[in-house]
Amino acid sequence: MIIPIPTVKRFPSYLRILNQAKENGKEYISATMLAKELNLNPIQVRKDISSTGIEGKPKIGFDVDTLIARITHVLGWDNNTDALIVGAGNLGSAIANYGGFSNYGLRIAAVFDKDEKKIGTRIGEFAVLPIDKINQYVQENGVRIAVITVPAGQAQAVADLLVKCGIRGIWNFAPKDIKVPSSVVVQRTDLATSFAVLSVKLRKKTEDDVDVYIGEGEV
Amino acid sequence: MIIPIPTVKRFPSYLRILNQAKENGKEYISATMLAKELNLNPIQVRKDISSTGIEGKPKIGFDVDTLIARITHVLGWDNNTDALIVGAGNLGSAIANYGGFSNYGLRIAAVFDKDEKKIGTRIGEFAVLPIDKINQYVQENGVRIAVITVPAGQAQAVADLLVKCGIRGIWNFAPKDIKVPSSVVVQRTDLATSFAVLSVKLRKKTEDDVDVYIGEGEV
Repeated sequence: MIIPIPTVKRFPSYLRILNQAKENGKEYISATMLAKELNLNPIQVRKDISSTGIEGKPKIGFDVDTLIARITHVLGWDNNTDALIVGAGNLGSAIANYGGFSNYGLRIAAVFDKDEKKIGTRIGEFAVLPIDKINQYVQENGVRIAVITVPAGQAQAVADLLVKCGIRGIWNFAPKDIKVPSSVVVQRTDLATSFAVLSVKLRKKTEDDVDVYIGEGEV
Repeated sequence: MIIPIPTVKRFPSYLRILNQAKENGKEYISATMLAKELNLNPIQVRKDISSTGIEGKPKIGFDVDTLIARITHVLGWDNNTDALIVGAGNLGSAIANYGGFSNYGLRIAAVFDKDEKKIGTRIGEFAVLPIDKINQYVQENGVRIAVITVPAGQAQAVADLLVKCGIRGIWNFAPKDIKVPSSVVVQRTDLATSFAVLSVKLRKKTEDDVDVYIGEGEV
């Protein structure tokens, strides 16, 4: 089964609409309806769904429960995965308290920081742990995912430590590219990237003396 | 000048490396060096830079100051832009306190919420304001960008209100697509999308019974 990354990126939105439909008591949903809700092309939606191996019934659509279960499984979100957060600043706290990640099979298990003033303080349900306990924690709890929310200058050192402890997947929010061995997966979320796109589009739309035109491409 | 969206998305990373180079006293930087720092193809880097109209000197590279100024201008980040935040929860607080946005010419000016218990409480330097004061605030301060950090169920109502007040650019962190008139620009940042990619890549790498293969495509 080949699932392109852009399809993977659309799956969380599909899940959102499917769960809404389920709450509203709907048993079936059409690709057209999914497409309409998400401003997508129905052909794209059909292609995305067929990549999971699910087939719809002509004129009825897709079984909502089956599609939820299948997409959740493809994403690996049907097993709760523990993750730890390194960096107990504002962003780390926001992520620790977010709550919504349980929908993605992600459970924040612990929050670490190296700042002695933060250690022992509480972030929601978590007492901040000292970073030199990470290795022990990872070994004892078998955690394999970590979220990095430290400042840019500390990101690589934290990543090196996490890799040494056996972390296999890193979600990096620090504004810095990190280098890891090829056995480790890194996904970077950069707020600046998103804001850059908004800025340029806004400039294009609102300035008279605009000299920037946005070409076609991924949005 | 045509600037593709993927190029716009790379500009913040270029700025980061360029500012580091400047701090280290470098006057010139080569496309090869930028490419190496960011794990990009040097040809891509040259293409991206040439889209801004800047030309390098053979064997010397690009003037660091000129390139910083030009990319900042293209992104519209050379004018400080005020933005307001609607939703004083954890994510709204994290964004309000983030501090790093000033590098993007973005200044958080005020935080609004509809929860009476939150109004008047402080988030860093901001006292949370009641949402029914938004219109007055926007009119008096000429703000044109808003960040939505409310729960999914409230996102559309908040967007409608913002559009009515004259907001022209919306950065939407709520896990919900919002509909706005074509005169308004929306950029959505969805944490689930990013985590979906990490999950699938991690599954591919660590599970023996993997039945998901990731096709080529945008990462």
